[in-house]
Amino acid sequence: MIKIVVDLMGADNSPKILAPGAIKAINENPNLYVILCGKKDLILEGISNLEYNVNQIEIVDCQEEITNYDVPTIVFKTKPNSSLVKGLKICRDNDDVKAFTSCGSTGAVLASSIFILGKISRIRPALSSVLGGLKKDFCIVDCGANSDCRAIQLLEFAQMGTAFMQTKGVNNPKVVLLSNGAEDQKGSEIIKNAHLLLKESKLNFCGNIEGKDILSSGADVIVCDGFSGNVALKTIEGTANAIFKNIDDIARKSLNKENNEIYHKIISDLKNRYDYNSLGGAVLLGVNKPVVKGHGAAVSETIYNICNLAYTLAYNDLTNKIKNILN
Amino acid sequence: MIKIVVDLMGADNSPKILAPGAIKAINENPNLYVILCGKKDLILEGISNLEYNVNQIEIVDCQEEITNYDVPTIVFKTKPNSSLVKGLKICRDNDDVKAFTSCGSTGAVLASSIFILGKISRIRPALSSVLGGLKKDFCIVDCGANSDCRAIQLLEFAQMGTAFMQTKGVNNPKVVLLSNGAEDQKGSEIIKNAHLLLKESKLNFCGNIEGKDILSSGADVIVCDGFSGNVALKTIEGTANAIFKNIDDIARKSLNKENNEIYHKIISDLKNRYDYNSLGGAVLLGVNKPVVKGHGAAVSETIYNICNLAYTLAYNDLTNKIKNILN
Repeated sequence: MIKIVVDLMGADNSPKILAPGAIKAINENPNLYVILCGKKDLILEGISNLEYNVNQIEIVDCQEEITNYDVPTIVFKTKPNSSLVKGLKICRDNDDVKAFTSCGSTGAVLASSIFILGKISRIRPALSSVLGGLKKDFCIVDCGANSDCRAIQLLEFAQMGTAFMQTKGVNNPKVVLLSNGAEDQKGSEIIKNAHLLLKESKLNFCGNIEGKDILSSGADVIVCDGFSGNVALKTIEGTANAIFKNIDDIARKSLNKENNEIYHKIISDLKNRYDYNSLGGAVLLGVNKPVVKGHGAAVSETIYNICNLAYTLAYNDLTNKIKNILN
Repeated sequence: MIKIVVDLMGADNSPKILAPGAIKAINENPNLYVILCGKKDLILEGISNLEYNVNQIEIVDCQEEITNYDVPTIVFKTKPNSSLVKGLKICRDNDDVKAFTSCGSTGAVLASSIFILGKISRIRPALSSVLGGLKKDFCIVDCGANSDCRAIQLLEFAQMGTAFMQTKGVNNPKVVLLSNGAEDQKGSEIIKNAHLLLKESKLNFCGNIEGKDILSSGADVIVCDGFSGNVALKTIEGTANAIFKNIDDIARKSLNKENNEIYHKIISDLKNRYDYNSLGGAVLLGVNKPVVKGHGAAVSETIYNICNLAYTLAYNDLTNKIKNILN
C-alpha cells in the first residue's frame, strides 16, 4: 500500500468538490491510500454519498486557511495548522507516506515543500509538466520555479527530467535544450554553456530545438530555464485557446445545426488535449519526496489525475532515481 | 514616389519565382518604385510575361551569391558584390531610396544592415514581427536579434515598438512586458528591472502579461528579450501547426466527403492566419532606414507583402518616429 497526502485546500473549488477525485483514485487502485488534509466537515460532505474502502483513506482536519494576505514563501512558518504545512509534515515524518499533492498557491507549495521536505543534495528544485506531443508525451523542465538559472542548473534539470521520464517507463529518455535556433551555437550565453555541459554529460542529449518543435520534436525531456519554460507552456495554452475560439466563431457563423454537431464532435476531445493546466499537474523535482502541484482551477478530475501521478512517481521511486542520476 | 530596394537572392526560391511579387506591389501602388537586386537574367525571366510600368522599376544585376559557407556576420566585407551588400549600399547612398527588404539569411541581413546603414543613436537594433491577435494586430519586439539583453534595452525595444505601431496608425500604443506572471514583481531580474524602467517612462505601459495572453491581451506592443520572443513566436507557430495537424487527422478519419469540404472551408483561412512566418516579414528596428526581413521560405506573395510593409514604414517615416521617441 502506498500512502500519499492530498491537500484539498487553497484551490478555487472547495474540498467538497475536490474530494471525490481522490475517492475515484482509490476505488480504481487497491494499492493506494490517501490522507486527505483540509476542513473535515467539507471533505465528509463531498464523499458522504460515495462508496469506498475505509481502509484506504484517512482525513486530517486542518481548519487554518492560507489567504491572499499571506506571503506564500513563509506560510510554512506563519500557518503551521494549514493543510499544506500539516500535510507536508505528515509526509516528511512518516516513512510509509511517499508523496504529496496540492492545488494551492504555487509559491506557497514550492517554498513549503522545499523547506519542509528538504532538497536532494544541493540542487535547485524545478517544476516539470508533462504534455502530449504529436509523437509522444514529453516533459518540460523547468516550467516556472526558477526565473534566473545558471548553466549547471539546466544540466541538473535535464538529469531530473530524465529520472522523471524513467518513472513513466521511458528507456534512455531523449533530452533536448530549448533555444532560439536548432544549431549548436545558437542561444543566450547560458544556453550555449548548458549545451556544452549537456554534450559532455552521460545523458541522451540530442541537441537544441526551437519553440516550433516543442510539440513535434519526439524528445522525452525539454530543458529550459523557468522563465522561458513558463513562457513556452503558457504560449501553447494561449495559442490553443485562440485557435479554438477562432474555429468556434467561424463554425457558429457558417455552419447549420447538423454540421455544427459534426464540428463539435471533431473539436471537443482536442480542446481537452491542449488543456494541460486545469486537468494535469506539475511535478516538483528535486525535493526528498515527490510533490505534485495541481492547477488552482482544479476540479474533481484534476485531483483524480494528480493522485494517480503521485502514486506512479512514488511506486517507481522517483526520488532514488534522481539521486542515482545525480551521482 | 518612394523607392525601396528588394533583394531577391538568398531565399529558398529563385528570383524568378519571387520577382512577380514586387510587380504586383507596384501595379497596385503608383507611388512605389522598386530596385530589384539579384541575378538579372532570372529576374527578367520571372517578369517577362507581366505587365507593369517601366518607370517604377529598375534591376541591379548582382551575380555574387552568399552561400552556407559564408560567415553571415561578415558578408558585408567578404561579398561586396552580393545583392544584399550592393542593395544596402544603394539604400545608404541615395536619399530618395527609403527602405530595404530581403529574404536572405537572418544573421547576414541583420549584421550587414547594422554595419552598412548604421544604428540610430547607440541603441541595439531589434527584430519586430506583427501578429494578428484575437482583438487586434500587435507587434513583438525583440523576436530574435538579441539573445542576451539588459533592462535598458527592453525599454528601448518598447520605444521602437511604439514608433513602429504609430507608423501603422495606432494612436498611443499600449505596451506590455512578457513575463512569467502578470503581477508587477514577477519575472527574471532583468524583467523586474525593465518593468520599473517602463513604469517610469512616458510610454503607455500597461504592465506584465504571460505567454497565454500574447494573442488575447489587446496590447499593441509586446516587449521581451530576443530569446523569449523567439521562443514565444515559434511556439505559437508550432502549436498552430500541431493543432491543425490534429484536426486534419480527425477530419480525414471521421468525416465523409461532403463534410470534409465543409471542414476545409472552416480551416483553410485560419491556417493562413497563423502562418506568420512564410507570408509576413519582420522589421529590423533601430537602423537608419527601415529594413524588412522576409522568411527564407518566401513565395511571390511574401515579396508582395514585404514590399507593401517597407513602403508603409518609409511613407510614415519610421526612422524619424524612432528618433523622436528616443529623445
